[in-house]
Formats: sequence, C-alpha cells, structure tokens
Amino acid sequence: MRSHLTHLECTACGETYPADRLMTTCPACGKVLFARYDLEAAAKTLTRESLASRPWNLWRYAEIMPVQDARYALTLGEGGTPLLPASRLGKALGYNRLLVKDDGQNPTGSFKARGLCAAVSRAKELGASAVAIPSAGNAAAAMSAYAARAGLDAYVFMPADTPEPMKAECRAYGARVFLVIGLINDCGRVVRAGAEARGWFDVSTLKEPYRAEGKKTMGLELAEQLGWRLPDAIVYPTGGGTGIVGMWKAFDELEQLGLIGSERPRMIVVQSEGCAPIVRAFEQGERHAQLWEGAATVAPGIRVPVAIGDYLILDAVRQSGGTAITVSDEELLEGMRLAATHEGLFVSPEAGAVVAAARLLRERGVLGQDDEVVLFATGAGLKHTDLVTGEYPVLNPDDPDLLAAIDRAYGEPTA
Amino acid sequence: MRSHLTHLECTACGETYPADRLMTTCPACGKVLFARYDLEAAAKTLTRESLASRPWNLWRYAEIMPVQDARYALTLGEGGTPLLPASRLGKALGYNRLLVKDDGQNPTGSFKARGLCAAVSRAKELGASAVAIPSAGNAAAAMSAYAARAGLDAYVFMPADTPEPMKAECRAYGARVFLVIGLINDCGRVVRAGAEARGWFDVSTLKEPYRAEGKKTMGLELAEQLGWRLPDAIVYPTGGGTGIVGMWKAFDELEQLGLIGSERPRMIVVQSEGCAPIVRAFEQGERHAQLWEGAATVAPGIRVPVAIGDYLILDAVRQSGGTAITVSDEELLEGMRLAATHEGLFVSPEAGAVVAAARLLRERGVLGQDDEVVLFATGAGLKHTDLVTGEYPVLNPDDPDLLAAIDRAYGEPTA
Repeated sequence: MRSHLTHLECTACGETYPADRLMTTCPACGKVLFARYDLEAAAKTLTRESLASRPWNLWRYAEIMPVQDARYALTLGEGGTPLLPASRLGKALGYNRLLVKDDGQNPTGSFKARGLCAAVSRAKELGASAVAIPSAGNAAAAMSAYAARAGLDAYVFMPADTPEPMKAECRAYGARVFLVIGLINDCGRVVRAGAEARGWFDVSTLKEPYRAEGKKTMGLELAEQLGWRLPDAIVYPTGGGTGIVGMWKAFDELEQLGLIGSERPRMIVVQSEGCAPIVRAFEQGERHAQLWEGAATVAPGIRVPVAIGDYLILDAVRQSGGTAITVSDEELLEGMRLAATHEGLFVSPEAGAVVAAARLLRERGVLGQDDEVVLFATGAGLKHTDLVTGEYPVLNPDDPDLLAAIDRAYGEPTA
Repeated sequence: MRSHLTHLECTACGETYPADRLMTTCPACGKVLFARYDLEAAAKTLTRESLASRPWNLWRYAEIMPVQDARYALTLGEGGTPLLPASRLGKALGYNRLLVKDDGQNPTGSFKARGLCAAVSRAKELGASAVAIPSAGNAAAAMSAYAARAGLDAYVFMPADTPEPMKAECRAYGARVFLVIGLINDCGRVVRAGAEARGWFDVSTLKEPYRAEGKKTMGLELAEQLGWRLPDAIVYPTGGGTGIVGMWKAFDELEQLGLIGSERPRMIVVQSEGCAPIVRAFEQGERHAQLWEGAATVAPGIRVPVAIGDYLILDAVRQSGGTAITVSDEELLEGMRLAATHEGLFVSPEAGAVVAAARLLRERGVLGQDDEVVLFATGAGLKHTDLVTGEYPVLNPDDPDLLAAIDRAYGEPTA
C-alpha cells in the first residue's frame, strides 16, 4: 500500500516535471499541473478486495495519492462521508432515485478538508515549513486545521469584511489570520508577495497539484459506495472547480485501474446568477471564462469570479454531456430549506444551490425522474445559521392557556 | 442482520416490560429502563467477520439495536467517527498513547446524533407522530434533524436566553421552536404537559430507553476500532450521562457476545467547577446526586444540575476504578485551544473540559504516561466560535512595508 506517483504533467502544454519537489503551476505556460501515477503498478494492490479492509479516510486510496511516506499522510478522519438516499427530497424535486453525498460531515465542516489534507500533507513531505492561503472561508479553515495537525505555520489572508465565525475558526487552529483591505484577489497578491519573500507555500486552488488529488477522492468514494459504478448525473456547486476537475480525473484513473468501465455521469455545474463565469463560458461555447465583474451571492464558496482551471471544468462538462446552470439567492435559500426540512440535512448555501438546480433541471427536462442523480452537499449549514431567520414564540410555563398558545404558534401539525 | 431486542428492564427495581410499545421511565418506580437483547442469538451473526463488510453507521450493530424493521432505521451517516492518535497533544499533556474519538464529525455536529437517531427511529417504529424535547442545544438539533428525516413533527423547548445559532439550527430543520421563560427544568415541565395533552413523545435524556442504545455505539465502535480490546481509560464530559451509561452497557454486551474479555477501561467523569453534582456525589460516597444550585459554565452540555441516571453513572465509575473530576471554565477554554492548535481539532467546550481534565489527571498521578487514554470529543467547536476572541491585524495590500507589517503582527514563526 504505497503511492505510485511518477511525475507531474501540465494539463495545457503537456510538459512533464519530477514530482519530488514543491511545485505550483506549470513553469512553461502557467497552467494547472496534474499528478500522474503508474496505474498499472497501482492496479496490483488497489483492488475491490483490498479496499474492503482499509480505514475510511483519504489514504485508503494510497496507491493513487501523492504522499510517498505514510508518516506524512495527515488524517483528521476526512472522507468516507455518507452517500444518503433522499427519497423525501427526491419526491419534492421530482426524482425517484436521488442521492446526497454529505461532505459537510468532513473535519472542519466542508469538502475543503479533502483538498487541504492532501496538499498540506504533501507540502510537509516536500519540506515546506509554512503554508498560506487567500480565502474567506472553508478552505482557510481546512488549511489551518491540517497545518496545526502537521505542526506547520499557517498564514490566512481574508477580505476585511469576512464574517466573524470564519475568522474565529482559523484563529482557533492557531493560524496567523490577517484581514486585507480589498477583495479576494488582493489577498492573493499578499500571499504571492509573502510566498516569494518569506518562503510560505501557496496552497491556492489549483495553483499547486495536490488539492485536486484530495478532491478526486469524492469521485473514488462515489464509485466505491455505489458498488463500482457511477450515477447518471452529478450536480455540483462550482467556484474554483477543483471538485469537478478532481472527480473527472478520478473516473479516468478508475477506468485505467479496471475498477469501472467507460461510462461517465453527466457533470452539471451550478453557479449563482450573481457570479456565473463558467456558465457564461459554457453557453458561449468558450473554453476559457472571462472574469465576472461585481460578483455577488450569499454563497461564499461560489463567489469566485475567475478560475484558473476553467478549461478543465468546461472540458469535463462538455465531454460528459453535462450542462451548467445558475440559480438565484432566493432559490438557493429555498434549496437549503428543502434539504433540511425533508431530509434532516442542514447544508451550506452552496449545497442549497445544488438542490435548487436539481429542481430546475427536472422542470426543464434536462434530467428525468428515473435518472440516478447525486447532489453534492459540499458544506455544513452550521457556519451559516445567520441565513435562518424568524421570530420564536415565547411561552410562560405558568400560563393557564399554555397549550392553546403552543397550538396557535405554528398552525396545524403536519405529520 | 436483525434486532434481537427481547424486552425492557428497570435498572433500579428490576421489573420487566414488553418492548413493543412506547415507554418512558419505569411505571413501577420511575427509574431508567434498559433495552435487553437475546445476546446468544445475536452472537451468531454479530461477529468480527460479518462486521467487516457493513456500512459505518449505527445500524452496523443491528442485532443489538432496538429497531425491528430496517425501514425504520433512520440514518444520516451518524457514527463511524474517527479514533485519532494525538501525539502532539499527548506530548503537551504528558501521554505517550493518547487518542481522541472525534464525535463532532457526526451529523448535526455532535454525539447527540447517536442517541436521537436511535430514539427517533424507534419512536417512529412504535407509532409516534411527534417528538418533543427540552434542550438548549445539541440534543434539540439532533432530534430536529432525525424528525425531519422521518417526517415527524418536532417540538423544541429552549430557555429564552439560548444563543441564536442553536435556535436557528432547529428552525432550519423545520422544528417548532419555543422559547420558555425560565430554566431547562421549566422547559421540561412544558414538554410533560404537551406530551400528556397532545400526545408528543418525550425524548428527554434517559426518560425513554433508546437514546442510551444509540450512545452505546460509542463503546461498540471504540472496541472495534481498537481491534476488539479496550483502552486503559476513557475521559468523558458528563451532563445527563447517557454516554457513560451507554458505553458501560455496551462493554457488558460485547463481553457476553464473546467479542471482548472482562477487562474494562477506567471510566472518568469530567464536570465543571460550576456544575458538578456527579463529582460531589462521587466524592461523598453517595449513589444519588443532589441537585446543583446555581449551575454556571460556558459549556452548555455539562450545565446539567440533576441527572436521572446518576446511580448508573456512579456505578460505572466505581466499578471501573475510575474517578470524577472538575475543571474551571478557564481550564476548559485552554483545553479547546490545545486540541485545536496541536491537532487541528476544534472541539466543543465540553470536549475542551476533557482535554483540561486529562492534563490534571496526569499532574495528580491518576493516569500514567504510558496509559492508553481515549478522550471523547463530543461536539464540534463550530457552534462555539463566540468563545474564540481577539483582534485581527489589518493589512493594506499596497503598503510598501507590507512584509514588515506581517512579520510584526504575530512575532516569530513557530515551525
């Protein structure tokens, strides 16, 4: 059970590089680097049978993960999240075979744990002593947690208007949290300056090769949890797009390993009406997305105006026969409500967007009622309780009309 | 793979009752009822080998869980939480073999998911149409989530000063949330009135027999994750005590199933200096605890002035050669800080109390440096970001002295 990582390869110009040193983007063309493996060798030990007895964390797929020495494989129990049948939600949305992959049950409450687990582990293995990230939320928290576990210094740069709980979570892990006057791209500038001058390793989305390796485990798990097959469609909230890109890579590797066939799910990108660069590029037939001006949505994870991996996302969507769709903030809040009240899944606004998109995809006939559809719930709603509003009825326990007051407050019981 | 539940038995007077109807406490004496199983029959299918291929949720132990018809076995992926080696935290506290069971990764962010999953599943199976609970926090959220998954009406009664995020979480799940003027016992009075008049099923701690069955899975998992043996000590934050009681019951059942021997861990109860009824009773040699007046601590899960299962908790502690210990709020906040900064585990204040207690237990020589000790992290810190305070340095990205400003803000890097 060891990694069969062989080299890095540029996804744009095809140039190859050794994998034994810290790398960011392609030195030749500036595009995204992928980790490559000797899949023939990996196939000898990464089998359905051997997997059955391995623990449910990222490293169960060690042969096609980047860490070479198991001592550097950090774990907080990330991965192995449940794939839940959602029949009540399915009925509400018009599906007979709806599933939710609840990645909000990861450490730090989001799917970002997967990517940062892999990236921080590998950065430590390759000698980094400090990691840095520009982020307003989940990615910063995940990086801070794994850096703490690894004993690395963590530098987090957040826009000055970042909500208090997000800052507090990173602070709790001991990260050096800075507020930057400006937007997320200004935070990125500060990280690049510090990386150059102070030697921090920059773990921005797809600007190093290993976050995508962590994210690809969503695709590996999905295939394994379905008994080594894939669903008809995956609906996924798309900001930087590492998840789509990682899963698409995972499916190719699984096919080469002989664990699945050539079938692929339709990959469906969900963005917000207020920030939809990938949807716009998809509709215009472009392979690269233009920067989205004035990005605005209540879902911070998809308030991403530009994605370095745009071409990889769009390739996956097109090759899979998928599509790209937007939802409004109002629709995504209603999506959150539906998932929580119908299934007991209090999900992040990004996941609410996926629920809302699933409804629209049925209404528009893009997906059929008998399609097996997997919704990715990328984060927990716990970080977003401010989006749940309303007054609460107050009771006096000694009120002689107590029961009547209770009866009146919410109307007729529904059960 | 079916339940071998046979009957209910009173833990105090020994009276037995059929298990095929909704029951609360013992009709004869008012004390706690336990679910009993035909363990000889269960042992035929609940084996090390059969478990290897079962999914990691509560129902992997179906033979010794109460639900009879698998259609009623609700799951949101609860259980199967990681048992993490914590070498950096261990070093800080003085242990060579420290483990953390991170139950904050459960659905709804706490170990309460286990108990309420079992209780709500069984209540639905036995015909309840509405469930109710007096709770200021995690238990209410867990009940609300499983009720939503089951399609049951949920009634939550919280003290009027409950923090906004706790109320919002229950509201998100569609629960009927009420604020009660008064304390948690006033909420309990309202639940009892409504249960009587409106037929809600009351799922208060240990006032029905099945929450303890959900909680016992912590003990089952611990044994299984350690390769069918138990640690030297378990350190556990204790409010209502269902966890201690459930785990102690689990160990007996595992021994009768032939899965472990007669060895037991020392069970160590942790409470707050501001609310320590069990510690006081332990020290005074009593089997029942007196109500703690003026309960006060920042950890809501252990602000429990009276526990109906006091005698069961105290029996387990004494029979195991364990102890009971208090920590101050200052110490538990430091415990939270240590777990987050040393291991990337941002835990609830109750779990912070456990970390603080572990330090005291070493300092006092109660536990040795080579003891294998399991700390139960019962909840996620995400619901408690208000306990993390401090100012954040603000950067102007165009500041010519940007790097100097970064260097100054937090002092020397530590890595």
